[in-house]
Amino acid sequence: MPPALIPFEALRHLAESLLLAAGVPIDEAALVADTLATADARGMHSHGVMRLPVYVEKIRGGGFRPGRKGVVLRESPSAVLIDAQDGLGAVVMDRAVDAAIVKAQATGVGVAAVTNSNHYGEGAYYARKPVERGLVTLLTSNGAPNMPVWGGLTRMTGPLPLTFAAPVRGREPFVLDLAMGVLARGKILMAAEKGLEVPPGTGVDADGKPTTDPGKIINGGWILPIGGYKGFGITMMLEILAGVLTGGALGRELRELYGVPDRSQSLGHFALVIDPGVFMDRSLFEERMAFYLDMIKSSERAPGVDEIIVAGEPEQRRHLRALADGVPIEPSVLTKLETLAAEIGVTVNLPGAAR
Amino acid sequence: MPPALIPFEALRHLAESLLLAAGVPIDEAALVADTLATADARGMHSHGVMRLPVYVEKIRGGGFRPGRKGVVLRESPSAVLIDAQDGLGAVVMDRAVDAAIVKAQATGVGVAAVTNSNHYGEGAYYARKPVERGLVTLLTSNGAPNMPVWGGLTRMTGPLPLTFAAPVRGREPFVLDLAMGVLARGKILMAAEKGLEVPPGTGVDADGKPTTDPGKIINGGWILPIGGYKGFGITMMLEILAGVLTGGALGRELRELYGVPDRSQSLGHFALVIDPGVFMDRSLFEERMAFYLDMIKSSERAPGVDEIIVAGEPEQRRHLRALADGVPIEPSVLTKLETLAAEIGVTVNLPGAAR
Repeated sequence: MPPALIPFEALRHLAESLLLAAGVPIDEAALVADTLATADARGMHSHGVMRLPVYVEKIRGGGFRPGRKGVVLRESPSAVLIDAQDGLGAVVMDRAVDAAIVKAQATGVGVAAVTNSNHYGEGAYYARKPVERGLVTLLTSNGAPNMPVWGGLTRMTGPLPLTFAAPVRGREPFVLDLAMGVLARGKILMAAEKGLEVPPGTGVDADGKPTTDPGKIINGGWILPIGGYKGFGITMMLEILAGVLTGGALGRELRELYGVPDRSQSLGHFALVIDPGVFMDRSLFEERMAFYLDMIKSSERAPGVDEIIVAGEPEQRRHLRALADGVPIEPSVLTKLETLAAEIGVTVNLPGAAR
Repeated sequence: MPPALIPFEALRHLAESLLLAAGVPIDEAALVADTLATADARGMHSHGVMRLPVYVEKIRGGGFRPGRKGVVLRESPSAVLIDAQDGLGAVVMDRAVDAAIVKAQATGVGVAAVTNSNHYGEGAYYARKPVERGLVTLLTSNGAPNMPVWGGLTRMTGPLPLTFAAPVRGREPFVLDLAMGVLARGKILMAAEKGLEVPPGTGVDADGKPTTDPGKIINGGWILPIGGYKGFGITMMLEILAGVLTGGALGRELRELYGVPDRSQSLGHFALVIDPGVFMDRSLFEERMAFYLDMIKSSERAPGVDEIIVAGEPEQRRHLRALADGVPIEPSVLTKLETLAAEIGVTVNLPGAAR
């Protein structure tokens, strides 16, 4: 069955209603719902409303603590350390980026480090405020360990996320948002369903042996980092920023999103904001960004390539399409949301859902 | 013929003498010579004394301007923009990192952006001052375009470098230093000089066809980024930091180190320094770094792996060995240095060179 096309506002409203019913304050429910529905609209469904059942489970179990917006532990003119106190990841990350923006506007550069936090979804979401203000940002987080050490068999880190964004004159901002694994788990699942092989170097089986069988990677095996030891090194850099610098838990100390409703994940986040206005007029920076993107996009194309696509463009185009035509949501995900809604006492009213 | 083992101080002194003879002021010659000899000692020969002939050529041609240490163009409490005025890359990068350290010590975070600069060699060298002071650092630079746009055939960026370092209690610092290409250009150059093949997937020839012949990659072909579009996206991030944020040249505007003695490369550099002392006692940060590295290194090992090696360790071990036993230098490189020395009027006296 093809995905249903749900109007963005209806999807966002459903997510908000479910979070409200689970006891989340209205401001936090609105923000978390917006992050989830926006991720779906951008086609990043693994960060979308499919997470609502486990979010509600974590809230009910006490692992996520709505209403806690983070407490400033230490501060300098350009940096701030925030204790999330097991609050909702989106709420605290949004606030941390706000704090980094204020620091950057005052001194040219701002860093916010967050400890004792939880899953924040799609990193690109938190880049919107800096780029709207003409600022450059780099964000990361640690995550539950599901990728082994390079050369080892023990899972001690995730294929961690790296988000980088900068404003561009006359265009959507440049938004790089990726994880350090060779292929996203969803793409490996899709290859398994279609009976396709994945490229060598994508992952290993449960015994740590290289395989091109996507089923073996998903079932007990694991995904490898891009560039082998290089990607693992970058992953360690991200863990140092998000885990060591924040004074929080890291690597194998971190807890999974699933299966432990009463435990916070104890994640750390890191946000860097730089004001290009220190170096030149902000409008000149945005012009040079446009010049750079034009340079890249004007490249002679390889055979079979219709257009040079830069980071962020596929998501931005899906986003525009979803706002016009509705957000594509898998029927299996809708069913789970309806089950959750019935259980929690929320009426589902999705005008676009052709079911 | 095996590499000659040259005492570190003799190698450094030879490099310094050649630079002095080329008209470089003593303080700058000492610094540049130290960066080159140290890179060789760490086994990073592509950033080592093999670069001296082209450095001297650039100095004589006017592309490198010794004596120019950089001028501060703009400044804020946490950030500084430095015009290198075509000076030696090592000289200006070292000064830029100093400036970022001062900013970080004052406000918690410091950023230095450098424009109109040149080749600075091995990034790891510039991490030594921050880590000695208990600080965390992230460094990058743009470089001559020798990697194509992802999906394209036009070279508009280099496989740019990323350096990240943090101090560790009771250990050598964690130093990640890599380029976003599958293999560094210098290593491909070295392979070509030695007549060796490079691994499949490293690059393509002038027609865009995969090749393991380093000569074909260097001469008209190109190096591929790690992780395909992901590595290309990270490369764009580094170019934005080093090229757009600095207000300087970028991508295809940049010039090669080789072949144009009279032109500056017009490179941009970026240095970020963060003081962990804002977030916790610095000694606690260094303890947590040791805890994290111990965690990674204690991983169960994959079959055939004797030890989990983290970023920086191979270079640090080679460095210690080279300080004890001498720095291994290829006979072909020594011959070129001797030719240069004879031409420039420098007496070569290398006690360890068994030739």
